[in-house]
Amino acid sequence: MPVEIERKFLLRDDSWHAQVERSEPMAQGYLVDAQALRAGLAHASVRVRVAGARAWLNIKAATLAIARAEFEYPIPPDEAQTMLVTLCNGVLEKTRHHVRVDGTLFEVDEFAGDNAGLVVAEVELSAVDAPFPRPPWLGREVSALARYYNVNLIAHPYRLWSPAERAAEDAAC
Amino acid sequence: MPVEIERKFLLRDDSWHAQVERSEPMAQGYLVDAQALRAGLAHASVRVRVAGARAWLNIKAATLAIARAEFEYPIPPDEAQTMLVTLCNGVLEKTRHHVRVDGTLFEVDEFAGDNAGLVVAEVELSAVDAPFPRPPWLGREVSALARYYNVNLIAHPYRLWSPAERAAEDAAC
Repeated sequence: MPVEIERKFLLRDDSWHAQVERSEPMAQGYLVDAQALRAGLAHASVRVRVAGARAWLNIKAATLAIARAEFEYPIPPDEAQTMLVTLCNGVLEKTRHHVRVDGTLFEVDEFAGDNAGLVVAEVELSAVDAPFPRPPWLGREVSALARYYNVNLIAHPYRLWSPAERAAEDAAC
Repeated sequence: MPVEIERKFLLRDDSWHAQVERSEPMAQGYLVDAQALRAGLAHASVRVRVAGARAWLNIKAATLAIARAEFEYPIPPDEAQTMLVTLCNGVLEKTRHHVRVDGTLFEVDEFAGDNAGLVVAEVELSAVDAPFPRPPWLGREVSALARYYNVNLIAHPYRLWSPAERAAEDAAC
């Protein structure tokens, strides 16, 4: 079974900008609300993503763990766009920056719209405890915090977070 | 946008057997419970289906109408099997019989397991009011009855239907 092992971090500062290889705009939505996952009425998140001229359907087990079963399939971008507009409850927009450090790829997501101001870095690993570089701009780990899940950022965007919810960010600066 | 127009009927008798072209075993499950659809927490049903040596992912708008937006993508059967076992809340099993009448294809689904005893015929049309043959075995139309939706047959299988719920069947005989 394909398993995705991802760790997610806040950013301490903007110095990662100097290491960006390429950037790509992304729009994504979910066919299942975060509330259905929390209520146990769905066992996987189903994501529709358009990135540049391509699009994918992504299915990820609804467990709040670092390692999650994941399935991904390319789909026609026009069909993805129709699904985003007609079948999703809100669309998340962000720019994804590819930042390579000592051969390891970090994906830095800079959110827009109601999540403007939020920036997170993700690194994909081959094992939960695999070693990876720790550049000076890498801040606090938030892999286990559900409010940073993209699916949750649609229902409860960064703009509406309480000071307590933003405390992790402050601690990372 | 691809739109599926399907009408579903009960069977008056078994005389359709003589017109079967081919039959295929199917197993299917859903990544979203019917309850999430009813509660408005998902806007589409997401179905995983294994039919013989092939498999598909199917996304259908969560409206209880005859015409529904539908998207379908082939996926690797081993991944579909993993999703059925790990991400779906129950698996529906049936044999699908292809029955052609005057050039029109009827799909007759003979359910198994907790839905054994239930048999329905579906016909796909190019328009909601398109004409189609009415063979003598075609019984009462149940397109609008949600309990006959495959997704609902998992949570509330035929075996557990009340006499009132089965009344439509009696009327068809």
